[in-house]
Formats: sequence, structure tokens, C-alpha cells
Amino acid sequence: MLSCSKDRMDDKVKTFSKFGDTGKGGITRLSLSPEALDAREEFCKRCRALGMDIKTDDMANIYATIPGELDLPAIMAGSHLDSVRQGGNYDGVLGVLTALEAVETIITEKISHKHPITVIVWTNEEGARFEPAMMSSGVICGKFDKDLMLASKDLDGVTFKEALEASGYMGKVENRMTPDKYRALVELHVEQGPVLENEKVDIGVVEGVCGMINYEFTFIGQADHAGTTPMKYRKDALYAATKTILYLHEELDKLDGKLVYTTGKISAHPNIHTVIPDIVKFTLDARHQDAEVIKQVLEIIKAIPKIVEKCEASYEKAWARNTVEFNSEFVNYVENSAKEYGYTAKRMYSGPGHDAQFVTDIIPSTMIFVPSENGHSHCEKEFTPIDNCLKGANVLLQTILDIDKN
Amino acid sequence: MLSCSKDRMDDKVKTFSKFGDTGKGGITRLSLSPEALDAREEFCKRCRALGMDIKTDDMANIYATIPGELDLPAIMAGSHLDSVRQGGNYDGVLGVLTALEAVETIITEKISHKHPITVIVWTNEEGARFEPAMMSSGVICGKFDKDLMLASKDLDGVTFKEALEASGYMGKVENRMTPDKYRALVELHVEQGPVLENEKVDIGVVEGVCGMINYEFTFIGQADHAGTTPMKYRKDALYAATKTILYLHEELDKLDGKLVYTTGKISAHPNIHTVIPDIVKFTLDARHQDAEVIKQVLEIIKAIPKIVEKCEASYEKAWARNTVEFNSEFVNYVENSAKEYGYTAKRMYSGPGHDAQFVTDIIPSTMIFVPSENGHSHCEKEFTPIDNCLKGANVLLQTILDIDKN
Repeated sequence: MLSCSKDRMDDKVKTFSKFGDTGKGGITRLSLSPEALDAREEFCKRCRALGMDIKTDDMANIYATIPGELDLPAIMAGSHLDSVRQGGNYDGVLGVLTALEAVETIITEKISHKHPITVIVWTNEEGARFEPAMMSSGVICGKFDKDLMLASKDLDGVTFKEALEASGYMGKVENRMTPDKYRALVELHVEQGPVLENEKVDIGVVEGVCGMINYEFTFIGQADHAGTTPMKYRKDALYAATKTILYLHEELDKLDGKLVYTTGKISAHPNIHTVIPDIVKFTLDARHQDAEVIKQVLEIIKAIPKIVEKCEASYEKAWARNTVEFNSEFVNYVENSAKEYGYTAKRMYSGPGHDAQFVTDIIPSTMIFVPSENGHSHCEKEFTPIDNCLKGANVLLQTILDIDKN
Repeated sequence: MLSCSKDRMDDKVKTFSKFGDTGKGGITRLSLSPEALDAREEFCKRCRALGMDIKTDDMANIYATIPGELDLPAIMAGSHLDSVRQGGNYDGVLGVLTALEAVETIITEKISHKHPITVIVWTNEEGARFEPAMMSSGVICGKFDKDLMLASKDLDGVTFKEALEASGYMGKVENRMTPDKYRALVELHVEQGPVLENEKVDIGVVEGVCGMINYEFTFIGQADHAGTTPMKYRKDALYAATKTILYLHEELDKLDGKLVYTTGKISAHPNIHTVIPDIVKFTLDARHQDAEVIKQVLEIIKAIPKIVEKCEASYEKAWARNTVEFNSEFVNYVENSAKEYGYTAKRMYSGPGHDAQFVTDIIPSTMIFVPSENGHSHCEKEFTPIDNCLKGANVLLQTILDIDKN
């Protein structure tokens, strides 16, 4: 079967790992930083060498295109080149490099295709320098207000607009993707979790992005001296909070086994070892593909009494998103491509958000996952063996060609 | 019966509340700050007006003395004039002002007494500007190394030594209290807890200072993505920590009802709502007058398994102190004095530490508590009604005279 080049794939991963190299196995390549601009330059250089036409839009998203045999909307593949602080060499960039490798294989092997093929690089997916995450796909897909995004500031007070103008990559609004110009988006990404590795599966066939809710809970008690206040007089907000965390665990564990839920953040005030805490806050993040299960989570939250251990208990929705379903035809292509190559594959939903989830509202989209060693993500330990990168590139290539044919 | 003056007492409290007034009902009067020096000046001015002899020692502790009829060691009473940031108008200062009022009453009423009587002001009891708390009584009583204390720095990098030298209150080492020069110390203080108020008791007869232990617990799990890590693969350090906090509550609640214990401080790393916490720490402060009960607390701590919910659990002693017993004869004087005045009284142990707990190792000492409204302490809401201040001053006066007679 047609295969991408392992050597070229390996060269790509190694070369791009230099831009923002922390010297500790990972990268810091914040959006539109000098390191990110170096990576963009290398990307464009390679695209030009392949004879691709390069355009950028008003959010500095890059579209590098090879023509197809017919005048049809293009098939897009790609992801992002920016990283979090002390991030890894695979999150985002692997989606761009596998797309580039797929195009390189199509060119080298002279494979005929009707549609133009575009490798896309999204600007500021991570939101690590300029909040929020998935900023540019969000603007293009009408999820975020552009002016608000342009005003977003980094820690040094630089606005996204200033960074954009200084980057040299700000293009025209008209260059944005629209359904008349684009037929499909396929985004390859590392799983960022341990499931594929643990179950010895090569390819994650991503059916969609899990719905999620994020709530913040607040418990208000009374700050008193740890040494002078008898237990019976106390209103200990931390005690109330810990009891509630365990209540949530007990009840949520009764729901569907695919539900994931997390209390990642907790704070106590005044947080002094000799003072009974008067204000304790914690978060609950819960994700499941089925809206019915998310509804059951909400019922469990709503059952928390207003007074817990003499403290006032309250909660507030921080945010929520509905489950996003990818194009079912494309999902089948991904699954069949993996089978044809003899790779093991598993249908799954993405927990984290990705640019493709916004795009699929406008352009039919899907995603391909490859394993993350030990599930590490957003850290320098992030790793996907080159064989898995190659398998991902092959499935991406075949999926693009399947979309092209049908 | 002999009584201190309510008007004078009220004037004293109101006058001293001006030094460091936050404008919000409390004071910020950090040790040796300009505000604290203003309070010292007012104190010395009043002492001089009463004909008292003023000495300071090398730690800037102030000893203001009226002579007795015989050449005997002096009876001391007093406390401290410094406060925490945004502290109240009673913690510490009330012990100085009631001692001054008792002396003023003795002078005004021409009450004969054999022993000289010294009003003492301890330097830096709070440790809020220069750590640790009870610094000067600690140095004098051989608990702390003086050179280490002199090197202690405030947030601006000023050492305690520099502040001491600049204060104008640094005296001679020879001026320090020693058993040949001092017979007794009686320290009046606000309770800093709700017991006296809740039980409608006027006077706390302090038998000693509770023994305490303070432990820090650490749980190490694994930081993974909240959206991608199935529940069964998780090592959630916060879940392990909350389970342990509730275990401690359940087990400690079975011990003696006078035990107080508190988890005041908790931290989670990386403390991001979408990341499973990998390191969680919390503290446990436990206090009881009976060493046997503290031992039982330790047994409960030791029974925590090394692995809790797949996370490594460990704990470390941050500090501990044994129960300090005050002079039982003096404790009886306090109780009897209260009874003679017709005040309700309750024997109790102090939860917080006080200078008197160090002093009693060298000079027989005891303490008197007056109620704290709502138990508020170390905050601007700190309040003790003037009637209770007066009752405390009367019991202090009578206790001094009882010690003088016996």
C-alpha cells in the first residue's frame, strides 16, 4: 500500500522540535513568538519547495495549497504550531507535519487527485500567550468576537493585534476558509491520554468532541482560631468542601463508565494552618459524549444541600459545551483506512477541544488520534514513537484520498 | 470591694486604639514600627506620670516598676503592644493596659504592698513583622538563639537588630528579668475564642497552654488531562487527600471532646481545573492539654496507609509543643479573686501560645482570659466590652495583691 516516508517524517519532527527547544526534551513556542515565527518560516520554506501556493488570512492562519485536477473546493488537513510553556514536540505540530508529509507523498508518488489539497496552520490554538484557546478557528467560525480577540493581552501587555501585525503573517479577510472554497478538514492530533497506548491501539478514530461542563463550588463558613474554637462551634468550609467532593465521587461513580470528572483546582481562605478556613472553592470538570449523562451529572450537583456542615454551599457554571459530532462519512474513511493498512483502531471521543470542533460547523471535518506515551500531554515528556507518527500520516493520507474520490 | 476605674480603663483602650488605627475598627501595629513606637511612648509617658521607674533590656522589653514596702523581687503583669496586620484593639494591649490600670488603682487607692510591681511590655509577640512569634520572651527564657533572632528580616529586608537599634528602646542585657529580681508574672489576655462568651462566663482561669502538634501531609499522584484520562487510570492526589481528611475527622472525633484539630491549609498542584492534581498537601493542627490524647492523635495519623487511592501518602511533623502548666497556686488566686468579685469563672487551657508560657519555666506565672466577642481574634472585629475589660483588670489587681500577701 501507498506509504508516507518514515525518514522524511522523522526529519520533520526532529527539525520542528528545534524551534523553541527548552533543552529538556520539549519546547516553549508561544503563539506568534520568535520561536513560533521560526517554525512558520520553516513550514513555508518547505511548502514553497513543494511548489505549494501560500496564503494567510486576517488571523494569520496559513493555507498552503497544491492544485487538484479539477476546479473544486480544497480538502484541508493540518493543526497548529504553537505550544504551551514547556510543552511537547507533538501536540499540534504533528497534525501540520503529517499533513505536509501526506502532500509530499502525493507529489512525490504523483498520485492523482481531483481536489486541491491545503495544509492549514491555525494561529494561537493553545491560548497560552493570548487567551482564549482555539482563538483563530473560533473567530473564523463565528464563535468569538474578533475585536475582543485582538485586544487579548499577553503577560507583557502586548495585544494579540500588535503581535499579529508585527508577525508578517497577517493576510486578508477574504483568504479565510468558506464552504465554497473548502470541502473538508482532517486534523491529526496526539491523543493526550493513555487509552490508545494502554489498549495497544494504533489509531484513534475520533467520532466527536465530548460535551463538558465546568462548575465552581463555593463553601462559606467562619474563620476562627484553630486553637481556641471547640469543634462544636466551628463552621469549617474545608470540611464542608471535602465532604462534598467525596459525595460527588460516590454519586458520579454510579453513572456511565465513560464519564470522566475532575476536581483540579481547590483554594482555601485564609489558608493558614492555625485558622479554620472560611471560604473554600473547588472546580468540577465533567465530560461525556452523551448529553443524557451530562444531565445526570447536573442532577447530582443540584442535589447538594444549601447548607453543608453548617457552611453555605453554592455553585456556579463556569462554562459548558455540547458534544460535537464529526462527519460520520469521514469517520468511516478514517476507520477503513486504518483497517486497510492493518492498523488497530478504536472509535473514541476527544476529551480536549480542538480547532476541528469549531470548523465542523461550517466545513465537514474529522480527526485522527495517535497514541501519547503514558498519556503525557502539555509537558516536555510528551512523546509519540515515530512508527505511530507514520501510521497516523498514512491514515491521514488515505482519508484525504478517500474524501477526494467520493 | 476594691475596683479599678471603668472610665480610666475605657480611656486607656480608646487612646491606644489610635496607634496604628486602620480606620476600620482595628489596628496595624507591627513590632517596632512607627505606630508601635508611638504606643510605647504613650505607655512610658503614663508610667512616668505615675512615678514608675522605667528600664528596658537588650530585646527592648520595657519594665515599668513601682517600689514595694520591702526589698523583694517584683511581681510582673503585662503583655505586648504589637499587633498583626489589620489586627484588633485588644490582643496583647489589653494585658498591658489592665496591668497599668491595676497599678494606677494601687497608687490612687494607696494600697500597701510588700513587693515592687512591674508592668512589662514584651517586644514582638506577634512575629507578624519579624518571625517568629514570642521572640523576645523566647530569647530571655532561652528558647531562641538571640543572634538568629537579630538576623530575622521583615518584608523590606530590615533586620530585627536594625529595627531594635533604631527604636531607642534597646537597653542592657542586665536589665532582663531573672528569678532573683522577679517573683511572678500574671498576663491578662483576650480569649481569642468563643467559649467564655457562649457560656456567659466573665473570667477564664487559665491553667496552662495546650500541647499541640502540627503535621504536613503530602499526597503524590500523577498529573493527567481531565478530559482524556479514564477514571480507572487516574492517580488523583486531591481525591486521596480528601479521603484522608475525612478519615482524620472520623477518627479524631472519637477522641476526647476537648480536642481541637484543624486542616487550615491545603494546596493542589498544578491547580488547573482541567488537570488531575499530582501533588496535594494539607496541614493538621491538633491541640489538647493531655499528652495522652495527643499521643492518640499520633496513632491515628500513623495508621494512614502509605498508598491511598493509588497515591503515595506521607506526613511530616512541622512542629509540636508540650502542654505548659501554670503555677497552680496562682491559678487558685485567679479563680478565688473572680469568685470574690461575684464574677463567673471557668478553668480552661489556652489554645494559642503566649509569652507567659515561656516565662513560667523561670518565674512562676499564670494568665487571665476575658471574653472575645464572637471569638474574633487577629482581625479588626476583635472586641471585648469595657465591662469585661474592667472585670479582668479587677481580677488581675486582686491576683497581684494575693501573690503579694502570700
